[in-house]
Amino acid sequence: MTIAFLTRLPNDDAKRWLAALRAALPSDDIVLGLAPDAELAVVAAPAPGDLAKLPKLAFIQSAWAGVDGLLGDPLLPRQVALARLIDPSLATQMAEAVAAHVLALHRQSPAYRAQQTQAIWRQLPQIPASERQIGLLGFGEMARASAALLEKLGFKVSAWSRSHGDLGDLLAGSDIVVNLLPLTAQTQGILGRETFARMKPGAAVINVGRGGHLVEADLIEALASGQISHAVLDVFETEPLPASHPFWSDPAITVLPHVAAITDPVSASQRIAANIARFRAGEPVEGLVSPDAGY
Amino acid sequence: MTIAFLTRLPNDDAKRWLAALRAALPSDDIVLGLAPDAELAVVAAPAPGDLAKLPKLAFIQSAWAGVDGLLGDPLLPRQVALARLIDPSLATQMAEAVAAHVLALHRQSPAYRAQQTQAIWRQLPQIPASERQIGLLGFGEMARASAALLEKLGFKVSAWSRSHGDLGDLLAGSDIVVNLLPLTAQTQGILGRETFARMKPGAAVINVGRGGHLVEADLIEALASGQISHAVLDVFETEPLPASHPFWSDPAITVLPHVAAITDPVSASQRIAANIARFRAGEPVEGLVSPDAGY
Repeated sequence: MTIAFLTRLPNDDAKRWLAALRAALPSDDIVLGLAPDAELAVVAAPAPGDLAKLPKLAFIQSAWAGVDGLLGDPLLPRQVALARLIDPSLATQMAEAVAAHVLALHRQSPAYRAQQTQAIWRQLPQIPASERQIGLLGFGEMARASAALLEKLGFKVSAWSRSHGDLGDLLAGSDIVVNLLPLTAQTQGILGRETFARMKPGAAVINVGRGGHLVEADLIEALASGQISHAVLDVFETEPLPASHPFWSDPAITVLPHVAAITDPVSASQRIAANIARFRAGEPVEGLVSPDAGY
Repeated sequence: MTIAFLTRLPNDDAKRWLAALRAALPSDDIVLGLAPDAELAVVAAPAPGDLAKLPKLAFIQSAWAGVDGLLGDPLLPRQVALARLIDPSLATQMAEAVAAHVLALHRQSPAYRAQQTQAIWRQLPQIPASERQIGLLGFGEMARASAALLEKLGFKVSAWSRSHGDLGDLLAGSDIVVNLLPLTAQTQGILGRETFARMKPGAAVINVGRGGHLVEADLIEALASGQISHAVLDVFETEPLPASHPFWSDPAITVLPHVAAITDPVSASQRIAANIARFRAGEPVEGLVSPDAGY
């Protein structure tokens, strides 16, 4: 059967995906681009409007975990079932990134780096991990994997989502707040002035969600006042982050080029093939998106 | 009974120790300085020769885990039993520090920091923790705690000590080598040219042992050639590291002011009191030092 693979990835990346999908779905005909008879589509940042050009479409499988870009397409055929990628390797990578950033903040790496630039030898007060409260925004597979790993490291961890817990309590109680939410109309801009004001003075922020969660100007203000001591940012409103952006040169910001959890085409294609098999068998698919919830 | 507390710590630190020791040993008379009738001494960097001035001395308890400084005192009464501090909180802190540094290297923090200074957005290849081999030099309580935590994070871990394993194999197989050895005549300078040459090209080094383990000039050479990609150093030949030292400004070196595991006087004094009780009861003491082995 014909499966359309729609993407705006650079050519080399698109070819790697195509090879991985073909290996995982050997009985299907995977076509790069608009295949008019395709009933299935696998998408990795497709051009807006493209999905609407496939009249027979019955199932859309995202090659990525986040579907905020897809749902932002006004021409997306919203009656067609859409699944986001569920890949345990993404949750593992994300948990590892969160653990690395939390440990670096916990052990005061930014402050020691600043001291090193001035050849200052000064031991800073250090509390044990068991006294450090980490607040996770999000309660999906990535947040749960991160929570489990942080607990293994001895941290106190709490998590919040729309249906779980009180946001004010979490913000007021946390030394480090980690955003792992999906980007939706409800979560857009959640890392903004009001949220920062409800956090402990001097708390730190890690954003591994989406750039749209963060109000950039509000962060700069909160860092300037000291309300937020440091921010680790893996995602940005505009990616790549423009060279002229003030984040690059702010010593209170760690800039990372969207590397917390990188989708591996081979591993992802196997998950995608299994999900397509579920769809064809009439079984519930993994990661079915609710367009209303936005994830 | 009189217990002499001998130290060259700054006055404030000495007072905190004295208060903690007095709280943990309420029936004893803890005297700061040379108490001629003392049969027991607790020491934290005592002046060389001081211990030789206590004629009734029967037991020396170090307030620190490392005793290389004590054993370097030519006047140390070597017939007197000497115990180093065994404090599980030190092993916990050390494991946490090792985990933080290993994760930072594993996730390429130094390279991303360098990119940030130049506003470069570039995703670097990332292998999973399960493919990253960590080699620990040392097999004491700190190395074992570190190995356990690294394994929880998913790393492959091997460890070497004089009586355990092959050093050449460990060096050749490790992506990151972590030194947790005690400083002895045998381990002095172990992080030197020959060791670096036996490591994988581009491997990284973490020294949380002692400054004397590292041959500083050899490290600078190995970093310059690229044989070693990065070094995280918590300890130095001279501490505080002099402001003019070239390590401070080397982007391939992370300088930390000896903070991997900081002895807490309260927790340590409780362990010390328990060990003194063991000594008085004629039971085996914890952490008994073999002057010949050097730890």
